[in-house]
Parts: sequence; structure tokens; C-alpha cells
Amino acid sequence: MPLSFSHLRPIAPAQGLPLYRQLYQRFRESIADGRLQPGDRVPAARALAAELNLSRGTVDAAYQLLLGEGYLVSHGAAGTRVSPQLAAALPIRAAVPPAAPERPPVHGGAGPLDLQLGLPALDAFPRKLWTRVMGRELRQGGTASLVYPEARGHAGLRQAIAGYLGISRGIACHPDQVFICAGYRACLDLIGHTLVQPGDQCWLEEPGYFMAREVLSQAGLELVPVAVDAHGLDVAQGIARARHARFAVVTPTHQSPLGMSLSLPRRQALLEWANRQASWIIEDDYDSEYRYLGRPLPALKSLDDQGRVLYTGTFSKVLFPGLRLAYLVVPPAQVQAFAHQADRLHNHSPHLQQASVAGFLNEGHFARHLNKMRQLYKQRRQWLVQALQRQFGERLALNPGAGGMHLVAGLRSAAGDCDLAQRAQAAGLAVEPLSRWYLGPGAAQGLLMGFTNIADAAQAAQVARRLYEAIQGDGLQPVGDWP
Amino acid sequence: MPLSFSHLRPIAPAQGLPLYRQLYQRFRESIADGRLQPGDRVPAARALAAELNLSRGTVDAAYQLLLGEGYLVSHGAAGTRVSPQLAAALPIRAAVPPAAPERPPVHGGAGPLDLQLGLPALDAFPRKLWTRVMGRELRQGGTASLVYPEARGHAGLRQAIAGYLGISRGIACHPDQVFICAGYRACLDLIGHTLVQPGDQCWLEEPGYFMAREVLSQAGLELVPVAVDAHGLDVAQGIARARHARFAVVTPTHQSPLGMSLSLPRRQALLEWANRQASWIIEDDYDSEYRYLGRPLPALKSLDDQGRVLYTGTFSKVLFPGLRLAYLVVPPAQVQAFAHQADRLHNHSPHLQQASVAGFLNEGHFARHLNKMRQLYKQRRQWLVQALQRQFGERLALNPGAGGMHLVAGLRSAAGDCDLAQRAQAAGLAVEPLSRWYLGPGAAQGLLMGFTNIADAAQAAQVARRLYEAIQGDGLQPVGDWP
Repeated sequence: MPLSFSHLRPIAPAQGLPLYRQLYQRFRESIADGRLQPGDRVPAARALAAELNLSRGTVDAAYQLLLGEGYLVSHGAAGTRVSPQLAAALPIRAAVPPAAPERPPVHGGAGPLDLQLGLPALDAFPRKLWTRVMGRELRQGGTASLVYPEARGHAGLRQAIAGYLGISRGIACHPDQVFICAGYRACLDLIGHTLVQPGDQCWLEEPGYFMAREVLSQAGLELVPVAVDAHGLDVAQGIARARHARFAVVTPTHQSPLGMSLSLPRRQALLEWANRQASWIIEDDYDSEYRYLGRPLPALKSLDDQGRVLYTGTFSKVLFPGLRLAYLVVPPAQVQAFAHQADRLHNHSPHLQQASVAGFLNEGHFARHLNKMRQLYKQRRQWLVQALQRQFGERLALNPGAGGMHLVAGLRSAAGDCDLAQRAQAAGLAVEPLSRWYLGPGAAQGLLMGFTNIADAAQAAQVARRLYEAIQGDGLQPVGDWP
Repeated sequence: MPLSFSHLRPIAPAQGLPLYRQLYQRFRESIADGRLQPGDRVPAARALAAELNLSRGTVDAAYQLLLGEGYLVSHGAAGTRVSPQLAAALPIRAAVPPAAPERPPVHGGAGPLDLQLGLPALDAFPRKLWTRVMGRELRQGGTASLVYPEARGHAGLRQAIAGYLGISRGIACHPDQVFICAGYRACLDLIGHTLVQPGDQCWLEEPGYFMAREVLSQAGLELVPVAVDAHGLDVAQGIARARHARFAVVTPTHQSPLGMSLSLPRRQALLEWANRQASWIIEDDYDSEYRYLGRPLPALKSLDDQGRVLYTGTFSKVLFPGLRLAYLVVPPAQVQAFAHQADRLHNHSPHLQQASVAGFLNEGHFARHLNKMRQLYKQRRQWLVQALQRQFGERLALNPGAGGMHLVAGLRSAAGDCDLAQRAQAAGLAVEPLSRWYLGPGAAQGLLMGFTNIADAAQAAQVARRLYEAIQGDGLQPVGDWP
């Protein structure tokens, strides 16, 4: 049998070897490297022969050798596997040491960690119901579920979102104005590609969601921090600092992270500024669904009669983040431009998830789940507030926010909040330092804590005690007026 | 009942109206706008009252009015819906005219169009088997399926890909070197964020995949087109034009779109250049699985002993594009830097799809499906080649490529290939003009045609005849030596 380069990875010592020995070696290396693990099934000889365009005999010969030496074991019709016995015998050689993350990753594939931010109550998600809806979509999925998803998003989901926003958020929009994106970051990315000119200025709430900073500055924007006070974004300060900014990113319902609402006069001032300058307001309505006191304010977008507001919402907080589903509502005059960019970027989520969420909305499961979560979160928030008050007394200032999914605990300490957060994280508490959310100097000191996965009062007390033990050594002072 | 701004969208005529009338109006507008469609279910009164923090009586009053006027119909326990009768009665006012795409979108949510590129055979996808595997993963999904997916990708899938690449592509890599991305574009994006400095030069095959151009230039790269000939990328020309380029993007298995393989001497020359310059080779191995003649060449990555090759593969071509799953293999020394960026970008696919593909690979379904598709595509390709030859004779030059999922049909015509393609597209044939794949001047003229969804010889003949009728009016010349 002639040897040619094309068969296998050309390892020098193998150049003179017959094909079956080369294949044998490839398997041995894969097993030694840990790429094939004890118990893994190997391809059927006939399938592998077809795949590599080798003769069946060549593959059989290699497999016989591997079986004979105990690397593989045959289970007859159930296939051939890497021997489970090898687990003990082989020192598995890792080709690379696993890369240690620099800090506990926010997006870790596990969870929830105690006090972790931005996660809904995972124990309360109606998984069976979700599995049923998705299973049905899975079985019914036609060709549309196999090809590239429509660039602007699943038509049924866009329709369902437009209906939901009309009733619940007071936003009158046509489904064509709705774009489904794979997360909030992807929404910003789509805006960036459609509307941003390099060097454009952008107001950002100070403090504000740090992830947005990164995406926006990568899009070429010059970021201008604008303070928030008890009424939300200080629009007058924004105008004084950068009257000609082309963008403003705001969280009017619950300021992220401090939690206050943008007052009506501020809303009107912001819209007037945007209308006058023909600037764009990006409304991040990330957790508007969670309000525990009073009625939800309509979205800022509902006041936007001149088409200056780009509205974004997400299913990460009301269903689960693993969905990777967010949406963007753009003014009618911008639909064409956004559709063009969406078709270019095609940064979308699989059809199955989109169709399943559409079903969940249309069948009323979404509204029912939301109502349950509002009751639950109100309770869980209260547990954590009470536990922290009992444990820390005057040494923490807890925000009186009407909604959201986390508490802001203001504090005074000789140590910075980054140090305190690090200590707490080392104790398994996934708090975040408030100062990290500031772009400029003068950051307030505090800790952000998610309460959505606090299971009961006892867990709240235990978490509060662990937090106290982790950070009290640094001498927290009574807070007084905070910040 | 006191009126406050916070209840509903403040429409001027509604300011003095009681709450139930405002809610009633909101529904009427939603129905008139088409946001609520005839037959749509509306929220249960109790759920909506809780959601909007209105009293149950307010919502009931609004619903009674809507029922009384025939906007809604009650189905008792089955819920309340927008009246199906409205379909005929209402002139549905669309808030925005749907944006007409400028050209037939590649990623359209439907398909396949005749001769469409880049799609696998949708009729031959083992949907039942896939539904079973995915249904199992759906039911078994624990907390990990709800939270943010691991930034680098599902551990089981990375393991399965490393095993697959070891056996099938001769690539020795540890699962830690594998990064799962939501498509090839997302792979390039991750590379861009990790390694690109603005102003870096990048060799691109000429002609080459046009989508890559866009992503790479957005990443800040200066693109340098480098010709391909019968042996693939002309490495000497690349060195002459831009010796100090930091990147080269190549499709060594089947050049995209022309189909030739990069010869062994060229592979060695390319690697030598990259090693000397400490430059990066991005290997796009997008359809290496489809080869119908001879044995598959090992990946260029398998020759990369100094860690200069970034290898990308995708499941779009072998399973289906709706998955949005691609992968990137980076050298061990780069794992940490890529992991850091992946955690920042978190541009990933849902856990469910990743876990399902892992199952599909581990249980041998993937290898079996691949083998079936190889046989099928070989047949379908032959049908289309024969039909085109019969219909066009000397007027088309068909590429003799050993693999891939499309044909290149070279041609000579007074009209440009863009004009011809437009005529064919108007006749429902989704061909693409070859010249579009060139960055610089001197483009060869031709049409690209996908053959994977040609169902039989009769369909091939019919498609060839329709193509002939659409473009022969423009006086195709015998091709002779092409290009």
C-alpha cells in the first residue's frame, strides 16, 4: 500500500509506517492526551473507514491492535469504547493547564452563588412547563428551525413582544420595529453598527452598568459620565458637559445600579434635549417588570413622539439568562437601516428558543410567572433587608428602591469597597463593589447584593453573618447620610 | 379614584379619563395597530391587574367594555381572545411599512431556495433523531441550562470536538484550547478582540469569503488581497505584497469559493512565513468534511508545531445553520488571553444546543450522518453537473473541485456576472456572482451554485433549464480556458 502525506498527521517517526499503524498511533496519542477519555465510544470501523477514505481492513487492523493492547474494549453491537480501566492506569497528560480566571466570572456556567447579581430565582423557574413548551416547538419545528434564523428575529416573537409592550409598558410599536438580539450587548452592538459615527459623544449614567461602557467605547463613542441623584440622571449636567452628544444611555425605571426612577420632569427634559439635538436615547429597561411598590411607570419610550428613543428589554431577568434573548424597539424611520445591519451582523439566537418564548408569552405563562416572581422577590428582598439590618445596624445604608433584583448597601470604611468585596468573594459571597460602576472619580462606596436566590429567612441570616465576619474586621463605620 | 401619570401612556385626550377607560383605549389602539391580532389571547384579568397594579375591578370594567363592543370574545375557562371576526371588519393599520430587503437575504428564515449556497441538505437532516437527543438534554438540563453558558463553551462539547479533531483532522489539542462561538463571525470577532492591533495587515485570499472581509476590517485590520491559483494561496505574492502582515486567513481544504486545496509546499511556505514573522494564520476549515474524491488532507493546523495557527470549524454545514455553533482552536500559549476575552464578550450559544451537539458527537450520530451526506452530496453534485453540461455545453466551465457544497461555473458574457446573477435571482435561482468574492480588480466572471438541496436528476434538469432561460439572452460565449 503506497504511503502518501494525505492520510494522517505527518509525525516524523510515522512516515515509514503502514497506514494502520499510523491510525493506531493517532488513537494512542488521543487517549494519552485525554482527548479520548476512558469510556468514550469510538466510531464504528466502517464509518471511520468511510470518513478517512481508508479501507475497512486498515481500520480493522488498527482497532485489533488497540483492542489487543487493552486501549479499546468491544461491547459487540453496543459499539467499541476506550477501556474504562485506563482511568487508573494512565497518567492523563493535559496539553494545557486550565486558564485560571482572574476573578470569579460573572458568566460562569454554574450558580447561583450566594448574593449573585443579575440572576432570577433559579429554584422558582417553571422548568417543567418550559420543557413542555420547548419540547412542543422542538417537535413541530419545520425547515425554518434548521436554516439561519431570520436576521431581525422570529416573526411570532416580535409580534408577541409588540403586544406585551403595548399592554404592559405603554409602548405603541409595530412588530417590524422590534429586533431580537442575542442579549443586551448584542442590542448595543446593533445600535453601534447602525447609528454610531466614530467620535460621537454619549452620556452615561454615573454610576452605570459597566458592561455597556465597554461595548459603547468599542463602537467608537466618547463616553461622558453624567451624575444621577434622587431623581435619576441629572439632565442639566449632561447638557452642561456635552450638549451636542449624539447618545444618552439611561435606565429610567430602576436606575442601574442605584434603583431610583427617572422623574417625570427629568424624562421630559431628556426628551426635549434629544428632540432639539436630534440625538438618540437608549432606554435600557432591563428589569422594569420587577416593582414591588406602587404602579410601574410607563417606559420613557411611551412619551417619545418624535422617534428619538431606542428601547431595549431582555428575557434574561424574567425567564433565565441562559436564553440569551433581548430585544430592541427602534423608531419607524430607522427600521430599514437597522434591518440592513441586522442582516449583515446576523448575531441572533436559535429559532427554537425564540419560538418557545413566543409560545410562553402567547399562552399567558409569562404573565403568570412574572406575577409569582414579583411576590417571591418582594419576600426575598425583605428577608435579606431584615437580616442585614439585624446584623449590621447603622453600618449599612440600604436603598429604599421600589424594585429591581438587588440591594445597594452603602458603607463607610477605611478599606475601599473593592477590598471588602474581594474579602466577601473569598468567603463565597458574590457581592460587587459599587465603585466599580463609576467611570469617573468620586465613587460612592457600597456593595451590591442580589436577593433573588435567597431561599428563606434562615439563609438570609446566615449570609448576612458570613458577610459580617468577612468584612467587619475592616472597621465599618456608621453610615449616617449616604453617600 | 385619583388619576396619576404613572398608570398608562399619557395620551392627551385620555388625561381626564378614568383608569378603566384608559386601559380600554390602550387595548383598542393595540388592536387597531395590529399589535394584537384577531384570535390572540389577552391576559387573564387577575394577572393583568397584578401586573399593572390596578384593581381587579378596573381591569374587569375595561374587559367588559371591550367584550360588549365585540373587540374581545370570552371562551370561559379557555380564556379571552381578540375577536376573530375583526379580521374582516378592521382595516389593520400597519404602524410601519415592512422594510423591503435590498437583495434576497442570505439568512432569510426560510429555504432552501433553488441553488442556494451554504445550506446542507435540509430534506436529509435526521430530524427525529435530533429531536430525541435534544429532547433528552432539555429534560435533563439542570441549573447549568438556566444560567449564562460558560463563556468558553460547554465543557462536554469542547471535549467532544477535541476528540473529533484528533481522529478526523489530525489536530492534537486539549479541550481547553477549544472555544465555542455563535458562528464563524463570532470566532473572528473573538480573534479580533484578543489579537488584533488597529492597523495590522491581513492577507485575504482573492477571491475569498466576503463576510470575513467585513468583520476583519471592522476589527481594525488593513486587508491585503493575495491571489489564489491552482495550488491555492500564492504565498510568495503575499510575502511580496505584505511581508510583515500579522494575519493570513486561508481555507486550505477547499478554497472558498474556488475549491482547490492548498498544496503541501504552499502549506509549508505559509507556516514558515508565519513562524518567522510571528504572524497568525486563521484556518477556516468550514466544509472539510465534504470531500468526494481521494482522502481528506489533514488540517493545516496539524502541521503547526510552533503555535501560529488559529483553527476554526463550524456545525452549520454538517448539521444545520440554525444551530449557530462554530468553534475555534487556539495554541496553548493563547488560551488564557482568549479565555479572558471570551468572558468579556460572552457571545455564546445556549446551553441546550451545545449539550445536544455534544451528545450527537459522542453517540456516533454525527459520524453516521456525515457519511450519509457524503454519499448524497456526491450524487447531487453529479446530477447538477450533468444537467448544466447538457444544457450549457461549452458555455460554462465547471470546477473539478474534490469537495465542498457548491459548484463554480465560469463563463464569458458581454453582461457582467452580477447582472446575470440578478436575472437568475429574479427567476427564483439563488446563484451568486463570483466577482462579488473579489476585493480588488481583475475578478473572474462566474456563478456559484449550491447543489446540496437538488432532490433528483429531474430537478437538476429543470433548474438548469430555468437558469439557461434566465441568462442565455445575454449571449454566453464558449468559455475556453477559464478564467
